[in-house]
Amino acid sequence: MNNRIRAVVAGATGYSGRELIRLLLRHPNIELAGAFSSGEAAPLAEIHPQLTGLTQLDCLPFDRATIARIEPGLIFLATPNEFSCDVVPALLETGATVIDLSGAYRLRDASLYPRYYGFEHKRPDLLGQAIYGIPEFVREKLRNARLIANPGCYPTSILVPLIPLRTEGIVDVQQPIICDSKSGVTGAGKSPNSTTHFVEVSESFRAYNIFQHRHTPEIVQGLGLPGESLIFTPHLLPINRGILSTIYLRLKKGMGRREILKLWQSAFETSPFVRVFEGSQLPEIKFVANTPFCDIGCAVDETSGQAIIVSAIDNLLKGAASQALQNANLALGFDERAGMR
Amino acid sequence: MNNRIRAVVAGATGYSGRELIRLLLRHPNIELAGAFSSGEAAPLAEIHPQLTGLTQLDCLPFDRATIARIEPGLIFLATPNEFSCDVVPALLETGATVIDLSGAYRLRDASLYPRYYGFEHKRPDLLGQAIYGIPEFVREKLRNARLIANPGCYPTSILVPLIPLRTEGIVDVQQPIICDSKSGVTGAGKSPNSTTHFVEVSESFRAYNIFQHRHTPEIVQGLGLPGESLIFTPHLLPINRGILSTIYLRLKKGMGRREILKLWQSAFETSPFVRVFEGSQLPEIKFVANTPFCDIGCAVDETSGQAIIVSAIDNLLKGAASQALQNANLALGFDERAGMR
Amino acid sequence: MNNRIRAVVAGATGYSGRELIRLLLRHPNIELAGAFSSGEAAPLAEIHPQLTGLTQLDCLPFDRATIARIEPGLIFLATPNEFSCDVVPALLETGATVIDLSGAYRLRDASLYPRYYGFEHKRPDLLGQAIYGIPEFVREKLRNARLIANPGCYPTSILVPLIPLRTEGIVDVQQPIICDSKSGVTGAGKSPNSTTHFVEVSESFRAYNIFQHRHTPEIVQGLGLPGESLIFTPHLLPINRGILSTIYLRLKKGMGRREILKLWQSAFETSPFVRVFEGSQLPEIKFVANTPFCDIGCAVDETSGQAIIVSAIDNLLKGAASQALQNANLALGFDERAGMR
Amino acid sequence: MNNRIRAVVAGATGYSGRELIRLLLRHPNIELAGAFSSGEAAPLAEIHPQLTGLTQLDCLPFDRATIARIEPGLIFLATPNEFSCDVVPALLETGATVIDLSGAYRLRDASLYPRYYGFEHKRPDLLGQAIYGIPEFVREKLRNARLIANPGCYPTSILVPLIPLRTEGIVDVQQPIICDSKSGVTGAGKSPNSTTHFVEVSESFRAYNIFQHRHTPEIVQGLGLPGESLIFTPHLLPINRGILSTIYLRLKKGMGRREILKLWQSAFETSPFVRVFEGSQLPEIKFVANTPFCDIGCAVDETSGQAIIVSAIDNLLKGAASQALQNANLALGFDERAGMR
Repeated sequence: MNNRIRAVVAGATGYSGRELIRLLLRHPNIELAGAFSSGEAAPLAEIHPQLTGLTQLDCLPFDRATIARIEPGLIFLATPNEFSCDVVPALLETGATVIDLSGAYRLRDASLYPRYYGFEHKRPDLLGQAIYGIPEFVREKLRNARLIANPGCYPTSILVPLIPLRTEGIVDVQQPIICDSKSGVTGAGKSPNSTTHFVEVSESFRAYNIFQHRHTPEIVQGLGLPGESLIFTPHLLPINRGILSTIYLRLKKGMGRREILKLWQSAFETSPFVRVFEGSQLPEIKFVANTPFCDIGCAVDETSGQAIIVSAIDNLLKGAASQALQNANLALGFDERAGMR
Repeated sequence: MNNRIRAVVAGATGYSGRELIRLLLRHPNIELAGAFSSGEAAPLAEIHPQLTGLTQLDCLPFDRATIARIEPGLIFLATPNEFSCDVVPALLETGATVIDLSGAYRLRDASLYPRYYGFEHKRPDLLGQAIYGIPEFVREKLRNARLIANPGCYPTSILVPLIPLRTEGIVDVQQPIICDSKSGVTGAGKSPNSTTHFVEVSESFRAYNIFQHRHTPEIVQGLGLPGESLIFTPHLLPINRGILSTIYLRLKKGMGRREILKLWQSAFETSPFVRVFEGSQLPEIKFVANTPFCDIGCAVDETSGQAIIVSAIDNLLKGAASQALQNANLALGFDERAGMR
Repeated sequence: MNNRIRAVVAGATGYSGRELIRLLLRHPNIELAGAFSSGEAAPLAEIHPQLTGLTQLDCLPFDRATIARIEPGLIFLATPNEFSCDVVPALLETGATVIDLSGAYRLRDASLYPRYYGFEHKRPDLLGQAIYGIPEFVREKLRNARLIANPGCYPTSILVPLIPLRTEGIVDVQQPIICDSKSGVTGAGKSPNSTTHFVEVSESFRAYNIFQHRHTPEIVQGLGLPGESLIFTPHLLPINRGILSTIYLRLKKGMGRREILKLWQSAFETSPFVRVFEGSQLPEIKFVANTPFCDIGCAVDETSGQAIIVSAIDNLLKGAASQALQNANLALGFDERAGMR
Repeated sequence: MNNRIRAVVAGATGYSGRELIRLLLRHPNIELAGAFSSGEAAPLAEIHPQLTGLTQLDCLPFDRATIARIEPGLIFLATPNEFSCDVVPALLETGATVIDLSGAYRLRDASLYPRYYGFEHKRPDLLGQAIYGIPEFVREKLRNARLIANPGCYPTSILVPLIPLRTEGIVDVQQPIICDSKSGVTGAGKSPNSTTHFVEVSESFRAYNIFQHRHTPEIVQGLGLPGESLIFTPHLLPINRGILSTIYLRLKKGMGRREILKLWQSAFETSPFVRVFEGSQLPEIKFVANTPFCDIGCAVDETSGQAIIVSAIDNLLKGAASQALQNANLALGFDERAGMR
């Protein structure tokens, strides 16, 4: 027990923070040693009654000195974008591996931050050092990584199925790739506002941030595409958790469903948390809710070469907390699945 | 058209206000002449996009002089309790019939206000003059009423079935009457907070304000009971609208289901909006959602005399807006159903 | 009252049938004179407890002779596709205007029926005579129409916004039009099966019938496009009612949001039930649920000419019952809005 | 690995069966060795796509000989009541510990079966031998038990908080104990029918089986009460999983909240899966969903002695699968929490 890595979670009052804590509390090699937030000190089990009986830990006001004294091996930031941007440099000095669940270190091009995140990035130098952590594609780089930018939930659902296709060049990018994504409400965070009010969400459905969502440049960067080749439209589903993305693209001549499945099988052969749906059943949100999986499947109209890819994740797990833990496991040399079997 | 009564709605931005407006816009004898709120001026159709194409009216900042200039025949207040308490006296001076949907004029005993509503009532004299408007029981009194206290949603669901039984004395009040009520989220109002956040409500269920809800004295008053004879427990359902109350009571010796149904039939014979379920089917929320009905039914264990009464209403309609309009129709001498067929 | 047109509803036990009945019961010029289904005789208010107190009518086993004796002016068929196909010819002989809510008379090309509907069409001659009734586009043709094919729910949500754009040729059809549509569960009908089980739908979301849905040829026909120019993907939302379609298309050079809005304004100037959203607010399902409206809005990336159109309807109303009533009103020369104000 | 106990699950296609399988697949000391149902052979991952990648096992048609050849140490029956009643005797002959999740062996009085379960019990002799397994109250008896009757979901939520109070006699049973319980839809099973159809459940709420539910005699037996002292009313919540019971009872003179909490603390001091809520926060379904916990809390009106107890469980876990596994762990001498940390 005493040899376990000490981990700290900042942003412990939000939904992603809570899920991280839940996972860490049953991890065989990591010990939850501290929880922090912008609020006042309070028992974690009071903030999240779900955790009653599972931990006696208090959530404390965020303070770098307190964190340093814990001598953590891991620091998870489930904090607002600009806050993450500001505190990462000092937290790296503790020697811990920092895994940032915000968008602060995801984009390599610092000039995109004012437009998409509303602030000027103060440490563009670190953007090049951060590992963009979809673990399935960067396992080697993650080993001993110091700063990991944990991907956005929507981008994860889109990049996992598309990167293998893009890498092999079977997509005809003359036709824009259209990503019609739908997310549960935990994706909008825990702060109550008019768009997360039960009555405004239940028995309804809507698109939002059309042509403007901050995950667009993240997806474009991940696919190595010119911006105009991709359209991303997020929608709000009246459910708690889960994302389903319906992705429309045209395949190059001669390519079909068989080629897509082959590329996926080869790309994810050793990936415990990507499940390729090879039969007629397509991914659905209920199959992945409360799990660390990304499910992917596809249908192709072989005549026209038009392909539809369907992917599903739990936005709080593969889209946030469990992906962060996968990244942590790989950075520390543990089994990728530790704490998530 | 020009002979229609002019009506004003204050508190037009909330859910009850919106439903009132929707009803008034199709009323044959009443014209929506003004809408007010505590916010800035804005088109009603912008505040409630549901109303797009149905009205060009602006919602204006609440102002007594502006209201007086409209020369309204009817003023509906869907405003906070203390605000209603304060403005009713001045609004009565306009000569309009005032229908207050808040709790400010529902309790006859002014001394209950500090404990249950958190403020000292400034006009206890008016409490005796206000008509507590469950129209099914006070049709005569409503004619030409000047101040009508529109009942609470939970009390409506409980008093409609119980008043006829109490009046006839078939209930054995040695055993407390237990009202286990469940309400949709519109009952909690439109202000976003942690208890109305989608994620906190969806896939969950909870009791709240046990032994302390402000509707308790209103129900006790309506039944003419000593306080300890009634237990009222509200719960929050993960639905938008509707209340179902499950009411437990013991009947006096010799009384059974037949006697309950008889009393209800006689009490509601001429009531268009109370539906007595006489067969094995019991009321459910879906049967009354988006309607002005109160559905009532019962089951009795004839051996023990234990009775279970089930009632259902739409909390925004029979529990607020349509009941207010029923009251208005009766006060003005219109058909009770006008605007709600 | 005695001069009202007598109407018959066949398929009265389903959701569309129930909504039609609800609308007809408050229609000023039409009288619900008969209700039929494939089941045994039973009071309508027993089949649909929502209708308690609103009608004493029994729902009878479908029988042409019984229907003929009613001497109806209007017959609404909310019956299965093949059943509608078979009974329409005989029902036309009663002299009534027949409005078929099934797909049996929507496609002009009879050869599509075996593939998409699973039966050989027995009366291809009638396909040319049936009016495909999106009333906004065929008001003149509807007057005195004898057979009206009421459009599908998904096609309505897609054709209302697209037909004006197609007619004016501002869409670049080199790029396929992609219709990503999401529907509530009433669209799947009232028969319980594993795909409508609450637990399989709630807290989930899925695509279905990819590249194969029977509404595809209906949309293609409505737009006058070659089949490969359109991709239609339906999804199942965990809500009761409502459809939202997100439609992706490329505009011709020089065309933008302004041109779309202009075409819509001109096309729907006199249409009471189409609402063009001209500001930044886009349509959402909650704005149209329980209403006869089709709301439409758009966003355009002016650089690339990529347009996203968002439309919303209530699938049981504008997607079925209220559209049928609009068609009936126009066929009979009544105000288009009668019974739906 | 080879020393693990082999377990068989019969009734593997239902919701309880699925949850049992999910738990067994990560149990350190038990191996899922067989899955059976009344249907045709099919991979478990096809029946429950949630299990994709987690097991290669096929679900086979139920057959005693096949089960016997597995030489199981544990047999879980998540099968219909009468089926369980019939097969338990033969399955006991395999030497395995049989844990029956149906109601077939829960009632000690065989004469209750025809009325509440619709069949004559063929093995009344075994009713006396079966351990009614709420593990918190029968840990000693469970060790080496051969036949365990796993309690019903509603009874679990009621008996866990009430048994300690009844045992100590602080309840005044002159007033009936009223249990107003609300359950999610998984409690109604996986067979689609009109009462589990999404549209009939969503945005609604209803009571059912008033005065007649088969869990009533089970609760009465568990509390050692005369039948007329308890009223149990189940309701259907529009959620997937979870039960909340609101329980009304009168305490004996001099007893209050403090006494209840003390009895609970003492009864559950060593119970890992019962959480006593001692502060002002009461149990809610979301705190226990997807967990093996039973949360209990209470409020007391000290003047009248009226107490309200609120309890919450996940009906598929503490109300079925995880309670079965707790029972199995105790029967086999494992840590009660094994497989459920």
